[in-house]
Amino acid sequence: MNPFIYDIPTRVYFGENQLHHLGKEVAAYGKRVLLTYGGGSIKKIGLYDAIRAELDKAGMEVYELAGIAPNPRIDSVRAGANLCKEKQIDVILAVGGGSTLDAAKFMAAGAYVDHDPWEFFSSNAPIEKALPLITVLTLSATGSEMDCGGVISNLETQDKLGRLAPPLLPKVSFLDPTVTYSVSPYQTACGAADILSHILEVYFTTEKDLYMLDCFMEGMMKTVIRYTPIAMKEPTNYEARANLMWTSSWAINGFVNGGKEHDWSCHPMEHELSAIYDITHGLGLAIITPRWLEYCLDETTVDKYVQFGVNVFGIDASLPPMTIAREAIQRLADFLFKTLQLDDTFTKVGIKAEDIPHMARKACGGGTLQGLKPLAQADIEAIFKMCI
Amino acid sequence: MNPFIYDIPTRVYFGENQLHHLGKEVAAYGKRVLLTYGGGSIKKIGLYDAIRAELDKAGMEVYELAGIAPNPRIDSVRAGANLCKEKQIDVILAVGGGSTLDAAKFMAAGAYVDHDPWEFFSSNAPIEKALPLITVLTLSATGSEMDCGGVISNLETQDKLGRLAPPLLPKVSFLDPTVTYSVSPYQTACGAADILSHILEVYFTTEKDLYMLDCFMEGMMKTVIRYTPIAMKEPTNYEARANLMWTSSWAINGFVNGGKEHDWSCHPMEHELSAIYDITHGLGLAIITPRWLEYCLDETTVDKYVQFGVNVFGIDASLPPMTIAREAIQRLADFLFKTLQLDDTFTKVGIKAEDIPHMARKACGGGTLQGLKPLAQADIEAIFKMCI
Repeated sequence: MNPFIYDIPTRVYFGENQLHHLGKEVAAYGKRVLLTYGGGSIKKIGLYDAIRAELDKAGMEVYELAGIAPNPRIDSVRAGANLCKEKQIDVILAVGGGSTLDAAKFMAAGAYVDHDPWEFFSSNAPIEKALPLITVLTLSATGSEMDCGGVISNLETQDKLGRLAPPLLPKVSFLDPTVTYSVSPYQTACGAADILSHILEVYFTTEKDLYMLDCFMEGMMKTVIRYTPIAMKEPTNYEARANLMWTSSWAINGFVNGGKEHDWSCHPMEHELSAIYDITHGLGLAIITPRWLEYCLDETTVDKYVQFGVNVFGIDASLPPMTIAREAIQRLADFLFKTLQLDDTFTKVGIKAEDIPHMARKACGGGTLQGLKPLAQADIEAIFKMCI
Repeated sequence: MNPFIYDIPTRVYFGENQLHHLGKEVAAYGKRVLLTYGGGSIKKIGLYDAIRAELDKAGMEVYELAGIAPNPRIDSVRAGANLCKEKQIDVILAVGGGSTLDAAKFMAAGAYVDHDPWEFFSSNAPIEKALPLITVLTLSATGSEMDCGGVISNLETQDKLGRLAPPLLPKVSFLDPTVTYSVSPYQTACGAADILSHILEVYFTTEKDLYMLDCFMEGMMKTVIRYTPIAMKEPTNYEARANLMWTSSWAINGFVNGGKEHDWSCHPMEHELSAIYDITHGLGLAIITPRWLEYCLDETTVDKYVQFGVNVFGIDASLPPMTIAREAIQRLADFLFKTLQLDDTFTKVGIKAEDIPHMARKACGGGTLQGLKPLAQADIEAIFKMCI
């Protein structure tokens, strides 16, 4: 086990009726707030009005930037960063799902630099400072509400790139499960696939790890498997929404890593799909993940598959290891494609075979992803072909 | 589920060879540090010298207060608080187990008040400020390294009382599992009993809770059950020590509460034992806990016992609920008294029957503990009698 630093100071207000804390939290950072959000859904559910009322009560001067799109664009980040400079914004309040939160993170960093914010991604420009960010989450999926990373798309260059930096960590996040009642069954399913992938990317490793953290990850996977179908059928089931919401944060806030240093595999692969085809991130992950597990299964990796199959799906531990492993992959695929009813192939979502070599090359940046198994371009092409 | 606020900003350096971060972390708060610790064990294992070297390198002015005893005394707190005032201390560095850390917390708060620090306990005097506290943990048990509470004994009044206050939360904690290699099998066992109790106090409840957090608690209990016997037999087993250490922090940092508001039961009962008899906290908890579970078992509470038995001990879920529940209590008792070889009765540790009414009355403060089952003085007397 490698040493690690645990450092997640985000304060979280979890549950119903916590918004009365919003004003004081925002006002603690200054007078001028940039309120950023996506489409109009937060207006439909009354969240916008509730937030504006709290900001008014706290005497904040509010500027707005709406229209942050899924797979958020660098254009939105540029617009937000410019607005922050122009209006001398003190604090950003992002209301939405992972896309809005991710865009807000790089607006916050962009406010402190003179260069184009795309350089955070294209040339790893330093992120030493960022405006304080407060979030109100409306979708359980990316975990952006409690991590210091984000992913931004550039349609011109067909790039979708991620970046991590401690100053991007939200200061405060509001997680009210009732706010996610209006999330559609399809988006709930895509969010669940995203959460599962965050866990599987860390869980499936050949690095030595902490048993305790494996137990936590298995518990979170069981939580997603138990509550996603309920949330899809009964959108206002508080218990289901609450379990999914808190799991989404803990799946990717860094806690479960416990010093692991390997690369992620499915996320870099998926980013190339949505960079070109603009499909929902969780859907792309759902299609890739079972094939990635199938591709990486061999005698050197089988033990972790057995642990997964027995502890998450309750498969009989006395069966031969390879049988358990294959059954575990099948159970995961059944969950994603039957229970969650997500499309199971590239063909169904319109991804063309001819783009595979190009996407595979970009996914590994011409090198090798050092994950569960090292994946060079040819390996990624093979996995992509399994998805057709 | 009740709404809750998650707010644990303690930064943790976990693993071997992290002490080179100590100097900069301490120096961030000023020049004058109070180094406080217990007996001489930190000198024997070389930790004292390593810490002094880091403090010297950082140019700190170091004051010392050694000799903090187990079941830490208010006298030590008074001495520390006075030293902080007299020497205008900027930051406290506590090196030790929960006793040293708890004492340091109330020195840190005592430095800011004119009254006797015992008033934090006897009359709930406000704790609005405290000196910044940094800890180096040497024993996996109380979780003081990542929570904002502590327990202090007053030998004169035979009181052992706890207090929680956000300013007491350590800013930074260093958790190096190799530092616990020298902890004896007996102290390792007592620490494990303490960790288990912290989890059981929250897990066993009639309040509605988050399935995800129940999974985490079950994972932590399985971790303690799996690794304590290993750490007792192989004191330098890194994996065992690391799993116990990180579990000790997460068992009681508030994360698993998830909005639960019920009282704890075993801890207030145990505090009365060690207030009079000065026995090791974990040992007292081990004796009380299975009897408490036995006493509270009935048709209204049995479901949680079944969940515990099946998920933690792997008891056959198809057995009748009451059978599973009784078997689960027995398995827990076997773990504590056979595997960990802890004494299983009051008689064996010298606690006298004649003190029971007095201890029971103080444990519930003349009222009722509102935990798994409401416990008034008569109930606590009954539980204590089961321990004879």
